[in-house]
Formats: sequence, structure tokens, C-alpha cells
Amino acid sequence: MSQQRANTRSLQDNPQSAIRNPQPEDFTRYDQKLEFILRTSARVFAEKGFHSTSMRDIARATKVSLAGLYYYCASKDELLFLIQDNCFGRVLERLEARLKETGDPVERFRVVVENHLSFFAANMAEMKVLSHEAESLAGEMYEKVSGKKQQYTRTVRRILSEVQQRRGAGARKVDLTVATYALFGMMNWIYNWYDPRGKLSVADLVETVTRLFLNGFAGGGDLAPVPPRPRADEPLSVWRAPRA
Amino acid sequence: MSQQRANTRSLQDNPQSAIRNPQPEDFTRYDQKLEFILRTSARVFAEKGFHSTSMRDIARATKVSLAGLYYYCASKDELLFLIQDNCFGRVLERLEARLKETGDPVERFRVVVENHLSFFAANMAEMKVLSHEAESLAGEMYEKVSGKKQQYTRTVRRILSEVQQRRGAGARKVDLTVATYALFGMMNWIYNWYDPRGKLSVADLVETVTRLFLNGFAGGGDLAPVPPRPRADEPLSVWRAPRA
Repeated sequence: MSQQRANTRSLQDNPQSAIRNPQPEDFTRYDQKLEFILRTSARVFAEKGFHSTSMRDIARATKVSLAGLYYYCASKDELLFLIQDNCFGRVLERLEARLKETGDPVERFRVVVENHLSFFAANMAEMKVLSHEAESLAGEMYEKVSGKKQQYTRTVRRILSEVQQRRGAGARKVDLTVATYALFGMMNWIYNWYDPRGKLSVADLVETVTRLFLNGFAGGGDLAPVPPRPRADEPLSVWRAPRA
Repeated sequence: MSQQRANTRSLQDNPQSAIRNPQPEDFTRYDQKLEFILRTSARVFAEKGFHSTSMRDIARATKVSLAGLYYYCASKDELLFLIQDNCFGRVLERLEARLKETGDPVERFRVVVENHLSFFAANMAEMKVLSHEAESLAGEMYEKVSGKKQQYTRTVRRILSEVQQRRGAGARKVDLTVATYALFGMMNWIYNWYDPRGKLSVADLVETVTRLFLNGFAGGGDLAPVPPRPRADEPLSVWRAPRA
């Protein structure tokens, strides 16, 4: 088991895995089967939620026996880990490769949006699982996924900072933290509404999100920013304040 | 039981509820207890997920007996329904009241952002439950919540359309559907990163999101929109194509 497992990227650096001269053709068959299990599990987790899904549900959906499943992963947690780790790993890898093609900040920003939206439009179930099950792992698995997520966030934030610097000193600056997460929000929310097989193509979606984020909804800056309008104190919790 | 229940807003129009001259002071005590149960349930659902939470978990968290809980709601589904229905009902009611104060499209847009962010910053657990458990209800309960959500979405979309019309015929128009959901994404994603007790005040968050959405990250339109760049066909699924 550990001999085969060592071939999956995410487990390559797992110290428990021992490589014993596996044959390339075994690798291929093993990888294909593991990917089929992960893809199917992502769909089941997206539909039922991770905690409500049992390994029996995964066995039913994949038509792989329970014993067969445990040949590919040690636990349900490991399935979730492999899905999350592969997704963040892949999206980050693709981004870094593409960023090498250009040094222009606006073009680099465009690469971020194109890479993120095209990747996740093709992996909507995985996107929902990344979003909804971000806190479902613990310990080392959680740390590893978090590390990749943070690295991805830092990369995107750095590119936004490059765009901002290009605008020069005279420009009024938007808070970088809010801008970074606003961008992630715009892009990640698509799993709630976007149908990749519908009329709006991914290319049009990329174009609109890029333009909206860079130049805004009102476009050429002809609408002056509205000053904040403080409101009277009002208890905003949907529920009333608890009694002491 | 039905006598008391008839007082909660969401159940007022429940045909199963019969009102038998309840006393005002009973109403108050009943409502307070129900709101405490709903607030606590929202926190538990946000932490554990709706499907993994049992009525016993709610009983433990609220320190209300199981029999006591069933006096306030018929089922766990009804708890979730009451949380979702109250949240969408309240945020929509507040928005409609505030929109009466102004006819200016940009000011009305600002009211949308201020209302949404201040409400949900004060109800982060509820926000997570609305987002993660959007599909956890079925039948009439699902329809009722969906109806309110759609009404809210239509109202926001109409205001964006007003802003767009004010810009005049010469302006290049952003797709209204993408713009509406991009705005919801920017605002709703905050439950993943924003700490209302941190350094960034809700007023600053509102100001930044308003400016970012209206005028964009790059501001005064000095960065020309980048034309779409089609990419070579590439399988984008994180997993390889399944074998036939």
C-alpha cells in the first residue's frame, strides 16, 4: 500500500510512505483510480457535506468496496486532505508558471483572474468543498493545506500591490487586505450562481470580473466616492441582546 | 403551543397556528426564549454544520431540555428555517425602509452595501449558516426562504441598473448578473476573513467595498481594460478525464 501511495503528489513527502521500486504502469493505473475516487468524493462531499458523508457513501458512489477504498486512503479525512491539497497545489502551480510569462502588473492581475476562474469553473464541486470544509481538517493535514492557501493569498496580494504601485503616489489607495479578499469573494462566490455550461462563457466571466475589479462598476471614475455616513447606534444582531 | 408560536413573525402566516387571545407578557417571554434558542442554534450550526448537529447538541448548548426545545419548534429543520427566514426578512426590511430616504442611485447603492455589511458583520454565524445551509431545507420552508432571497437579489439588481442608467448611453456596460453576484461575493465572503472586533471598522469596510465596486481597484479609469486573451485548450479539471 505505501509503495503505491508514494506516487500521489500530495503523499510524496509523507514520511510514512516508503518507495519500493514501483513499476511505472502500476503508477498510472493507481493514479487513475485514486483520481476517480477523489473526483467522486468531492462531488459527494459537495452534495451531502463532509461530516454527513460516510466511507460507505463513498464506496456506493465509486462502486469501490470499503476494503478497496482503504487501499487508496487511510481515512475519510485523508480523502478530504487529498482533494484540498491537490486543488490548492494545482491552482498555485498553474499561476506561478503563467506569471513567468509577463512582468506587466495589469497583465499579471489578468492572469490571476483567468487562472482562478477557469480552474474553478472546471472544478465547481471541489470549489464548494474547499469553501465549506476549510475547517474540517485538523493537525498536520490542516496545516499543510493552510500553508498552500496562505502562499496563494500572498501571491495574489503581491500582484495587487504591484498594480497599486504602478498607479503612482498621487492615487488614493484601497486597503490591500480588503481588496484581496474582495477579489477572492467575487471569484469564489461563483459556485453559488455560475453555470459553466450556460450562456456566459468563462472568457466573458474573466473579462467582466477583471474590468469590474480594476475599473469598477461605474467605470471611468465619473462618480465621486461617497463619504461614509455614520448611522445612529442600533443593535444589529438579528436576535435581541441576551439578558444578563 | 400553537397559541404561543403564532407570535413569531415567521410563523404568523403558518395556517397550522391558531391564535387564542395570548397575553402580551407571555409573548415577550416566549419571543425572548425563542430568539435565544435560534441565536445559539445558529452558532452551533455554524460550528458543526447543520447535518452533523442533533437536537441533543442544541439542548446541551442552550441548556433547554429536549421537551422544552420541541415546545418552541417542531423540528431541527424548523430551527434552520426560522434562522434563515428571520435573517433574510430582517435584512430586506431594513433595506426597504432605508431606500425610502433617498432617490439618488449612487446613494441608494451605498445604502445597500452599508445595510448588508453592517447587518451581517453583526450576525457572522447566521451569515455562514445562510451560505453553507442554503440547500439544507426542502419543500415549503425552502420555497419561502428562496422567495425572500430572490426578492432581495432583485432589489439589489434594480439599484445597480439605476446606477448604470445614470452613467448614460455612452458608457460601456458591465453585465448586470455578473455585477450583482460579484457584489454579493465581495460582501458575503467576509465571514471567511473579517473580524468585526478587529482594527478595520465596519464603516471603513463599507467605504472600501463601495469605492472598490463603483470605481474599481485602479480608480480613475487610467488603466485601459485588457482584452480577453483566449488560451489553448487545456483540460482544467483538477482530475483527469474519466475513462469511457
